[in-house]
Amino acid sequence: MIRNTAIALLCLGCGFGSAALAQDDLMAAAQKKFQPIPMTPPDLPGNAATPAKVELGKMLYFDPRLSASHAISCSSCHNIGLGGADAEPTSIGHRWQHGGRNAPTVLNAVFNTAQFWDGRAKDLEQQAGGPMVNPVEMASPKAHVAEQLNGIPGYRDAFAKAFPDVPDPITLANAQKAIAVFEATLITPNAPFDRFLRGDANALSAQQKAGLALFMHKGCANCHNGINVGGGMYAPFGVVEKPGAELLPPNDKGRFMVTHTASDEYVFKVPTLRNIALTAPYFHTGKAWDLRQAVAVMGNVQLGAKLTDDEVGKITAFLGSLTGEQPRVTYPILPPSVGSTPRPEP
Amino acid sequence: MIRNTAIALLCLGCGFGSAALAQDDLMAAAQKKFQPIPMTPPDLPGNAATPAKVELGKMLYFDPRLSASHAISCSSCHNIGLGGADAEPTSIGHRWQHGGRNAPTVLNAVFNTAQFWDGRAKDLEQQAGGPMVNPVEMASPKAHVAEQLNGIPGYRDAFAKAFPDVPDPITLANAQKAIAVFEATLITPNAPFDRFLRGDANALSAQQKAGLALFMHKGCANCHNGINVGGGMYAPFGVVEKPGAELLPPNDKGRFMVTHTASDEYVFKVPTLRNIALTAPYFHTGKAWDLRQAVAVMGNVQLGAKLTDDEVGKITAFLGSLTGEQPRVTYPILPPSVGSTPRPEP
Repeated sequence: MIRNTAIALLCLGCGFGSAALAQDDLMAAAQKKFQPIPMTPPDLPGNAATPAKVELGKMLYFDPRLSASHAISCSSCHNIGLGGADAEPTSIGHRWQHGGRNAPTVLNAVFNTAQFWDGRAKDLEQQAGGPMVNPVEMASPKAHVAEQLNGIPGYRDAFAKAFPDVPDPITLANAQKAIAVFEATLITPNAPFDRFLRGDANALSAQQKAGLALFMHKGCANCHNGINVGGGMYAPFGVVEKPGAELLPPNDKGRFMVTHTASDEYVFKVPTLRNIALTAPYFHTGKAWDLRQAVAVMGNVQLGAKLTDDEVGKITAFLGSLTGEQPRVTYPILPPSVGSTPRPEP
Repeated sequence: MIRNTAIALLCLGCGFGSAALAQDDLMAAAQKKFQPIPMTPPDLPGNAATPAKVELGKMLYFDPRLSASHAISCSSCHNIGLGGADAEPTSIGHRWQHGGRNAPTVLNAVFNTAQFWDGRAKDLEQQAGGPMVNPVEMASPKAHVAEQLNGIPGYRDAFAKAFPDVPDPITLANAQKAIAVFEATLITPNAPFDRFLRGDANALSAQQKAGLALFMHKGCANCHNGINVGGGMYAPFGVVEKPGAELLPPNDKGRFMVTHTASDEYVFKVPTLRNIALTAPYFHTGKAWDLRQAVAVMGNVQLGAKLTDDEVGKITAFLGSLTGEQPRVTYPILPPSVGSTPRPEP
């Protein structure tokens, strides 16, 4: 599951971790391992982003009437003001039920290889269909989503503009498409690390550079790499040593529940570390509240590396360089309910 | 409680309701009874609105970490995208408890004579202290609010900028002040009715003008008047005839619970009708889902007037002219939690 070629390359090639590390070598090595967040949102295959579709997607993202209670929206758990996540171990959903896993950030999610901690959705469009109809999250009956939207007159016009050549555009599938194109705009370019990757050697502090060197040398970057510094592959939680039951409860077998393959037990999607300083608590259980603690745990259980406090501090400083420019989103004005609009579950 | 001078004036002076009503007379009469929403937010006495304070107030307004669960913010129930209210009969609060009364809109609330349905807060600043610490709403222990904010490093800077001459600015009282100045920006000027009041005879349709004439002639405007077309006085619900228990449950005695004066039994603040077409369901119980139904009920129980369908339609059309320009709010990026930040109630 984990590719070790990168470790070998790094360890043989560059002498990371030594005081003599040349700055140019660090940048060149980082540029091989990571890519900057682009300055503009990527295109979604088969789902062109028109202004009308992005605007509709934004409305849907913020509309709590997509939930059975009319109290929970995508934004409730993927709060753009809180790094695209919530500040909960696991999110509070319908009738105060708690979700099974920590809400992943929506920011830059478009760059992940798949969605959800277990990768059960291949892309944002598929993902968007999950929480609306999940009984512990927004809890709308599946057939009700389109019924609800059809009952709000303003959405008829908004869907018609977003899907101009479709006779009956208000469908759950089209709502998912619109939400996906909006979510694809939620990228956070121009983090210090991005500027470093683009050649600005001064974008990172000396401590952050030392942290980056450690991040690559110790092996963190074997899983946390690419554009999202993660999000590109799956890995077992506890490669070297299983974490305790609080961090890895035995009843959540992760990707195994999707693939039913024994080697996928306790395997999860490697999460992005983009904006990680904004999205405590950490891990799929949301049980680690301190980023330093999370770094130390990962060193132990994934790498078998007992990191020193100094090393943890440097890596944590590097992670701080992954905070990019947060999205500027104008709060959408939603089309009003009318007397005939379906009402919330009592 | 209700002043009847206005009825007399209208009935004696103008011959409203007759087909021969002169347009200039309607405008002149309306200008005596109502005032337009100003184009810029009003000043709050003793609470100057600086850009830093408004920005802090916006952050606090959207920050769910002010609740015990870290899941509920001011914005949860006073959603700027939903006319400043939620779409619930009564809001869903801490541990899925339901609030006692329908959430009033935050939009233009600055122009109300007092806040809450029973007027128990004299202004926005006092009101803002309520829901945060109300056990069925956000449920923060009172002393915890400042503790929580102190535990989020970015707020130290934000409060220092908003309250520059104060040694320890992070207090619940200052949070209330900041929220109040932000809320005072949430006004909706330039509704068709505002343009009419400013002299544009074409701003209302013929049906809306007929509805306005009825609104004044039938007596609605005796309570729903002034800048907020309501929000300026108290009145018993059921002046002429008590509504049924669903609309007026006997256990909620309204302003009596504040004043303990017998004449205040079942008395409530007259709600603003600004943006009323956006904020179903209606009444303090939130049990009327259709604006036409609400108009008909009010005719019956407040005025003893059995309005015809045509009259209800015209008044409802007039109420649609009270929808103003909705606030354009950029979603705030909140200061992140750190390892030592107080955590949500489990």
